[in-house]
Amino acid sequence: MIKERLAKLRALMEREGLDAYLILTQDFHGSEYVGEYFKCRKFMSGFTGSAGSLLVMKDMAGLWTDGRYFLQAEKELADTSITLFKMQEEGVPKLSDFLADKLPDGGKLGFDGRAFNYKAAQNFLKVFEKKEKKISFVYDKDLVGEIWEDRPALSAEPTMLLDLFCTGKSRKDKISDIRRAMAEKKADYFVLSSLDDIAWLLNIRGADVNCNPVVLSYLAMTEESLILFINEKVLSDSVREALSLDGVTFAPYNAVYDYVKQIPEGKSLYVDDKKTNYAIMMNRAEGVKLLTGDNFTLLPKCIKNETEVNNEREVHIRDGVAVTKLIYWLKKNVGKIPMTELSVAEKFEELRSVQKHYMGPSFEPIVGYGEHGAIIHYSATKESNVILEPKGFVLMDTGGQYLEGTTDITRTVALGELTREEQEAFTLVLRGNLNLAAAKFKTGICGANLDYLARFPMWEQGLDYNHGTGHGVGCFLNVHEGPVSFHWRIREEERTTYTELAEGMVISDEPGLYFEGKFGIRTENLIVCKKAEKTEYGQFLTFETLTMVPIDLDAVLVENLSERERKLLNTYHKKVYETLSPYLEAEEVEWLREATREV
Amino acid sequence: MIKERLAKLRALMEREGLDAYLILTQDFHGSEYVGEYFKCRKFMSGFTGSAGSLLVMKDMAGLWTDGRYFLQAEKELADTSITLFKMQEEGVPKLSDFLADKLPDGGKLGFDGRAFNYKAAQNFLKVFEKKEKKISFVYDKDLVGEIWEDRPALSAEPTMLLDLFCTGKSRKDKISDIRRAMAEKKADYFVLSSLDDIAWLLNIRGADVNCNPVVLSYLAMTEESLILFINEKVLSDSVREALSLDGVTFAPYNAVYDYVKQIPEGKSLYVDDKKTNYAIMMNRAEGVKLLTGDNFTLLPKCIKNETEVNNEREVHIRDGVAVTKLIYWLKKNVGKIPMTELSVAEKFEELRSVQKHYMGPSFEPIVGYGEHGAIIHYSATKESNVILEPKGFVLMDTGGQYLEGTTDITRTVALGELTREEQEAFTLVLRGNLNLAAAKFKTGICGANLDYLARFPMWEQGLDYNHGTGHGVGCFLNVHEGPVSFHWRIREEERTTYTELAEGMVISDEPGLYFEGKFGIRTENLIVCKKAEKTEYGQFLTFETLTMVPIDLDAVLVENLSERERKLLNTYHKKVYETLSPYLEAEEVEWLREATREV
Repeated sequence: MIKERLAKLRALMEREGLDAYLILTQDFHGSEYVGEYFKCRKFMSGFTGSAGSLLVMKDMAGLWTDGRYFLQAEKELADTSITLFKMQEEGVPKLSDFLADKLPDGGKLGFDGRAFNYKAAQNFLKVFEKKEKKISFVYDKDLVGEIWEDRPALSAEPTMLLDLFCTGKSRKDKISDIRRAMAEKKADYFVLSSLDDIAWLLNIRGADVNCNPVVLSYLAMTEESLILFINEKVLSDSVREALSLDGVTFAPYNAVYDYVKQIPEGKSLYVDDKKTNYAIMMNRAEGVKLLTGDNFTLLPKCIKNETEVNNEREVHIRDGVAVTKLIYWLKKNVGKIPMTELSVAEKFEELRSVQKHYMGPSFEPIVGYGEHGAIIHYSATKESNVILEPKGFVLMDTGGQYLEGTTDITRTVALGELTREEQEAFTLVLRGNLNLAAAKFKTGICGANLDYLARFPMWEQGLDYNHGTGHGVGCFLNVHEGPVSFHWRIREEERTTYTELAEGMVISDEPGLYFEGKFGIRTENLIVCKKAEKTEYGQFLTFETLTMVPIDLDAVLVENLSERERKLLNTYHKKVYETLSPYLEAEEVEWLREATREV
Repeated sequence: MIKERLAKLRALMEREGLDAYLILTQDFHGSEYVGEYFKCRKFMSGFTGSAGSLLVMKDMAGLWTDGRYFLQAEKELADTSITLFKMQEEGVPKLSDFLADKLPDGGKLGFDGRAFNYKAAQNFLKVFEKKEKKISFVYDKDLVGEIWEDRPALSAEPTMLLDLFCTGKSRKDKISDIRRAMAEKKADYFVLSSLDDIAWLLNIRGADVNCNPVVLSYLAMTEESLILFINEKVLSDSVREALSLDGVTFAPYNAVYDYVKQIPEGKSLYVDDKKTNYAIMMNRAEGVKLLTGDNFTLLPKCIKNETEVNNEREVHIRDGVAVTKLIYWLKKNVGKIPMTELSVAEKFEELRSVQKHYMGPSFEPIVGYGEHGAIIHYSATKESNVILEPKGFVLMDTGGQYLEGTTDITRTVALGELTREEQEAFTLVLRGNLNLAAAKFKTGICGANLDYLARFPMWEQGLDYNHGTGHGVGCFLNVHEGPVSFHWRIREEERTTYTELAEGMVISDEPGLYFEGKFGIRTENLIVCKKAEKTEYGQFLTFETLTMVPIDLDAVLVENLSERERKLLNTYHKKVYETLSPYLEAEEVEWLREATREV
């Protein structure tokens, strides 16, 4: 079947005079997850992993994917004639290098420019230039679309409006702010295609991307107009009316491409070229003055207002009740009633779903028992699923979407006896988590200035974790939200590490330790940046921990904590107890008192 | 007299058709200190401060300087007709803005392009462009030189060779390394004008810049040739011979400008445009391909080799003996024999000068008693000099040049009773100093990732210090040496904060606290970056403290130290005692034992 599809694609490539056709794993908006309509790479290759790029040439087809998927891809690509390229393995060429080497000089590379990030495409061009290969892009052909007869429809979930008690700022005020920012940059047109930015700006939510409550759409603004490019069927009359009242007009989803084409020469167009697809960028007329920079929505979305922060606090109590009940249930029942990674994940959903205004998971839950805890991107499947036994650790990284906010929490829980090594590792991770959350610093400080606080307990032992320490989190929006982050890397080309921490930013604090084949630990809270005192030296800032769930004292070596760390842990646990106990059953409260005892 | 000089300059400006003439405080090499020959701004304005820019137009003359010099400049500029522009004060225009506003469109701005950093000149052009003013530069006229009849000669101190036991790497090997780097960048020509880079590369030292043991010269390299542009009188026969043996040829100091002009079109010229003057940059023919980047010498100079690190250790013992003797003398004699800030500075020189291979101070000593300690750039003068009394703090920031290395140390010493506030502040600074020096981290980490360690004790109290936490230090070279540093600011345009820490880098660790009108504290050690273990997570690094001088326990509130900080202090003091006591008199040893006691 795959071979047939490849043959059809090659025929279309010949029709178009293409030497190669590239199929990435992206939707038109750079979303973190890709809906069924956009799964062209899966359709063409049979490979079902979440990341991978398929290259088809006359005489070869290759799939590039990363270490998480080598085994799976080998299995799924058998008998497809597609070669697996194991990314990062020695001797395996990068896709861009491979193209530069294999394509003829003057060759033509085709792809659907809507499903290819502009900056990423530019990076390909840079590689070609470096290798002195002239290659032109043909980006306006969705050849897979021509082949894919029973292609699923674009997601068209209903759009809902968010009330002021959720957003804290009206659509009208947000739009005015953006227009002011446009005027400052002398931007006549502003085109926005990242879905969480659109949802934030218009105070709307949907369900068009898995776990991300966003609405498939593009948005274009001028000083007078604001056009939402959208499948109008997803708008009820009342939603349409409310948006119209604030000056929003509507156009078909794909009409944005023609819209960009007709921007008059001499006018200026502002886009975030890091977050825009190749087709939008290239569709502008030559005489249009291009202005690039971060989306005007980026920082105001990241900096939560007072209403949003209060809502997040409240939501974290609900979520904390659910997760704490789960941990109690787990500790009480493990080894007594049957439970597996998958059934625990279901239990999370069950306990969250009875909480007020719960809207669904904020990402696919990770429940990894024992050695599965060491696989950072583990997601239990029917095949991998194991039974939880009353010993060792289970690592549980889950989160919820609520009407008023988003949660993301990891707890590693001891199900029974632990080894000394497990306790030592758990205590190191805990120390990192506590020290970062207790930072006090001045305005101007970035995540990269503070990352050391989470890592030094590990580094002192020659250990480390190969992921960032924290990411920004949206407010009933994407659980991974830029531009703020905690990471030590100061990358010159990536903005995230430069973002100054500011009051209202919600960020995760999630150091970990992973021992392949043995166990994994991560302890994650969400923290919100708050103002402390202002002195002649500047405005000082601190964090407040939003997440309210006990950290498993059964796994802590108290003697390995410093005096200060012990106090920080006790203070946190005291607050957890006081906050959650009113919402728990008597036996749960009794357990929680012990679970949050002073150490 | 100043008015006459200005009149002469204005006549020359008219002859050249210039609308304005700019006189900065720079030598031709961007050195930190400016020799007598280069003091044109002082000659033309009468203002003697170390920083300031003089602008002369037909109908005005203005001097821009910073807060350190407002009082002095007001006094010195009286009756000169020169207006003082107080930089950073509200309502005072920047020099570049002033020029953009006052110069006529199409106007001509003259300056000596040899004494104007290229990047700084570019920044002026950017301001003009932003304000849509067309202004051209006339950069080849040293008009002050025409007026200045009894101008001092260029410094022409003898050049000395450094032996392999000092440098650890031969001139020949260094030159080969640079040629390899040139080949990698496809650089046909490499022009080097920063004096410490030239001295490092050729293993020569001189005394042409105050406190910096460098030789006035330029250097130009190709694959075959290496020309040193220098006043040949400073070269003895043996020095000349040794350099010649390694392929160095000689040309007159100022011939570098013609040399750059004759680089053939089509060839490539590599320069560090951040460290090169405007004239050199502009003298190249249009068809020369310009390559810019850090000087090839920058990192190898910064990363000290094993010989240099061993030498630095040894030199810090000698220096530590001198400074420890001074502190003992101070504690014993204050209030009993007369001593002033200036006499203490002389005592430093006296005690250092008897140490092996002492070559002079590495910068002008800062000895600030009481409230003078709060003035960060304080340097005692006959007018400001005060008597030291047996109470409060004296802050002493001094350093020495030795044949094998450079030192830089600050100790704040209690001369008698202290207030609780003074002790608290001292202890905060000490905590910052100890915590930074005790960092353990991974390869890839920059100064900006660690700066928090030095600042957090202050930040926790809403306090801060308005200077960097540390700078790189040369090896018998400049005491301020790039590119490594400790500062939290992640500036996009400045390279220093990106420099990854690496084995062999010598950096200062110098947090402080300053209370205007009251007292100041700084505790500074030099630390060297060292390899720790290599694990599957990467190569780990730590610091070793080079400076060996006790920290005044009379000022420490031991109860304000954490357990870990107490241990760090005790470990340091134990090492100081063991290292220095063999070199001290009996009574000094007795005192040192007490001064380094366990707390």
